[in-house]
Amino acid sequence: MSKEKIKYGIIGSSGRLGSEVKNIFNEAEYDLAFQFDIDNEILLDKPDLLIDCSLPVVFEKTLAFQDKFKSPLIIATTGLSDQQMQLLKDLSIKYPVVQSYNYSTGIQVLLKLAEIAYGKLNDWDIEISETHHRFKKDKPSGTAKMIQDVIKGKSVNISSLRLGNVAGDHTISFGGLGEVLSITHSATSRRTFAEGILKSANFIINKKNGFYSFTDVIFNN
Amino acid sequence: MSKEKIKYGIIGSSGRLGSEVKNIFNEAEYDLAFQFDIDNEILLDKPDLLIDCSLPVVFEKTLAFQDKFKSPLIIATTGLSDQQMQLLKDLSIKYPVVQSYNYSTGIQVLLKLAEIAYGKLNDWDIEISETHHRFKKDKPSGTAKMIQDVIKGKSVNISSLRLGNVAGDHTISFGGLGEVLSITHSATSRRTFAEGILKSANFIINKKNGFYSFTDVIFNN
Amino acid sequence: MSKEKIKYGIIGSSGRLGSEVKNIFNEAEYDLAFQFDIDNEILLDKPDLLIDCSLPVVFEKTLAFQDKFKSPLIIATTGLSDQQMQLLKDLSIKYPVVQSYNYSTGIQVLLKLAEIAYGKLNDWDIEISETHHRFKKDKPSGTAKMIQDVIKGKSVNISSLRLGNVAGDHTISFGGLGEVLSITHSATSRRTFAEGILKSANFIINKKNGFYSFTDVIFNN
Amino acid sequence: MSKEKIKYGIIGSSGRLGSEVKNIFNEAEYDLAFQFDIDNEILLDKPDLLIDCSLPVVFEKTLAFQDKFKSPLIIATTGLSDQQMQLLKDLSIKYPVVQSYNYSTGIQVLLKLAEIAYGKLNDWDIEISETHHRFKKDKPSGTAKMIQDVIKGKSVNISSLRLGNVAGDHTISFGGLGEVLSITHSATSRRTFAEGILKSANFIINKKNGFYSFTDVIFNN
Repeated sequence: MSKEKIKYGIIGSSGRLGSEVKNIFNEAEYDLAFQFDIDNEILLDKPDLLIDCSLPVVFEKTLAFQDKFKSPLIIATTGLSDQQMQLLKDLSIKYPVVQSYNYSTGIQVLLKLAEIAYGKLNDWDIEISETHHRFKKDKPSGTAKMIQDVIKGKSVNISSLRLGNVAGDHTISFGGLGEVLSITHSATSRRTFAEGILKSANFIINKKNGFYSFTDVIFNN
Repeated sequence: MSKEKIKYGIIGSSGRLGSEVKNIFNEAEYDLAFQFDIDNEILLDKPDLLIDCSLPVVFEKTLAFQDKFKSPLIIATTGLSDQQMQLLKDLSIKYPVVQSYNYSTGIQVLLKLAEIAYGKLNDWDIEISETHHRFKKDKPSGTAKMIQDVIKGKSVNISSLRLGNVAGDHTISFGGLGEVLSITHSATSRRTFAEGILKSANFIINKKNGFYSFTDVIFNN
Repeated sequence: MSKEKIKYGIIGSSGRLGSEVKNIFNEAEYDLAFQFDIDNEILLDKPDLLIDCSLPVVFEKTLAFQDKFKSPLIIATTGLSDQQMQLLKDLSIKYPVVQSYNYSTGIQVLLKLAEIAYGKLNDWDIEISETHHRFKKDKPSGTAKMIQDVIKGKSVNISSLRLGNVAGDHTISFGGLGEVLSITHSATSRRTFAEGILKSANFIINKKNGFYSFTDVIFNN
Repeated sequence: MSKEKIKYGIIGSSGRLGSEVKNIFNEAEYDLAFQFDIDNEILLDKPDLLIDCSLPVVFEKTLAFQDKFKSPLIIATTGLSDQQMQLLKDLSIKYPVVQSYNYSTGIQVLLKLAEIAYGKLNDWDIEISETHHRFKKDKPSGTAKMIQDVIKGKSVNISSLRLGNVAGDHTISFGGLGEVLSITHSATSRRTFAEGILKSANFIINKKNGFYSFTDVIFNN
């Protein structure tokens, strides 16, 4: 390993997101120093930062590894309990932590644009719609709820469509008398989430202790 | 009046649709021979065909005028009762009658395309969505239900959005594993309905007695 | 006229936009104090502000009326010459002036959102597309060029579609590896431009001398 | 191998499309009897049908294998020369042959719908647009040209957009005075092409000699 490269560790290294993360980080000339999976643990070196792409059941292990490495943590696990979130916030007093349920840059930009548009068009009608593959059971999607949360003080209808194997489309539309303004995001591959985690790595490596969202990564750096 | 021109009568002549009909028929060199409205009745000549753009409450008057003129009838009134529909069908034994709740050519084509697509993609997921102005109270729209009726033997979800003063958008989407096919219709002005009535007039003038839909006008001539 | 009402004058009062402006201002309880048109000039009272919805050939008249009333000026005339623009800027040293080629609030918001998105997604591919009625001869639309101007330092392709009587749709899309973000504006009626002029009136009435764009009206008040 | 299973051979077996074909045919309980690739040739049994997912340079080899196996042929190679096409047509006198440049079912349905819509809306304006990944060099796409060919006797504009890694979107829009009708196809994965080849296999196995398109597979069986 060259001296300049940043060493990273990954938990959930062989999952679909974990595999993409390793591809992307490799291209970006990060060094894989540690990986952990259900039937695999390889420690080559002490990592400078730790990434968790696994599941809530692994969370305790993740905290133990972080305690061992004393490194910043990026957590991409979805479905954390309130208690687990609190443990992350406690940890962020001593270490920089980035946590998000969606590491897509485009979705972060959509959330920001929706907020700005709402500030100017708050008396217009608003509709959110989302389309996902037929196998997605939850309605509406978590991301649609994130968009809904941006429209403060207003109850906004969400339409959910289930079609084939659509990766994920989200639209927020504002309708005035005489015009409609819409913002649409379409995901086309998982790679985009791995790239968001890379951006988070570049962000966190020089940050002070604290609890950061992916919105901070995109907009406050 | 020149001998070649076709003479038409119109009931509901001063309403929004009736006014558009008169503009369009005038451009098409039809002659206005008779008009009737709530505070107006002008008979210049016996019409060769009769058009009703009024309301269900006027229906009895319409039948009386038709009986007087012995002419083919085009009826664009929405919200007819079952009994009124039956009277129209009885009438169609002796005269040609065209009846529809939507005289948009594009919607007729959409219905036909949806039917053909469903024949080939019947194991794909199907979603219908419609967007209308905020003042539209019924959900889903009558046209969305017409689209739903085309998908025989399958229960299809309809998403209804209400935005500003959108005239009316309808989409039916078919989703397979690896592709999505969508058919979308957007209405931009009332003129299109008047043009559909003109097509119905050109259709009915040489037809035998019978009960015709606007689908017949577009596809079976 | 009640004391609280603001008195306005309008040049080009009987045109399509002028007529909408009078409707909207009437609903907003402004008082029509002065109107001027090709064959009509009615002065009821000295207006508190002057609106020009006419054509470049009338521009000299407009300046003469402004000089007479000593009032703020909102100018919605399109196709002004460079010299006429300079005269407006000179005038704005002594009076508040609002000038824009597009008084749609939604387009202003789209321009702002496009600028913000570009700041975050400047290495993504960008495409602009616009759809207008078949009678529109210029390609691309002036509004599409306004969107293009927001994307500084990058040459962005514009696709122009001409379909039926579409009032005007504009989309800017940003494409990354794995996601697409699009912002779309659809105009559905002229009323929206009249409402933008009303917002400009509410904005200008208390402003200091200066030259303001409609962007200032929407974002800097 | 069970007696009931159909045995297939594949040329270009390790390419991206060839690999998908093997997955799909395996799920459909076909038996892989023969595979050929640049550095690999495995003959387990004489195949009942032969599929070519390779390149024009391999075409002569393909004809030689077909001559050896005396089997029906499905050819998915793109960019065949006129001479190669003629050889396929000659071959189809003695064997059933399916040839297409696009084995997506949805695109076939779009082509059929576009043809039907054009029959009813031939005086409307027509626009075609296509969006593909930034790496696609040809403009417009071959599929867009296939759509254009359906609109006989009319020159239709094609708008080409290049964005991120979009797999392929195609839209044909018909615009009348007062309405717009659009048909859109979005590809989301290569799997759909492999499924089209499976449909072609099920089609060809019981067909008489002849030259068939994928349109025949979808619409004339």
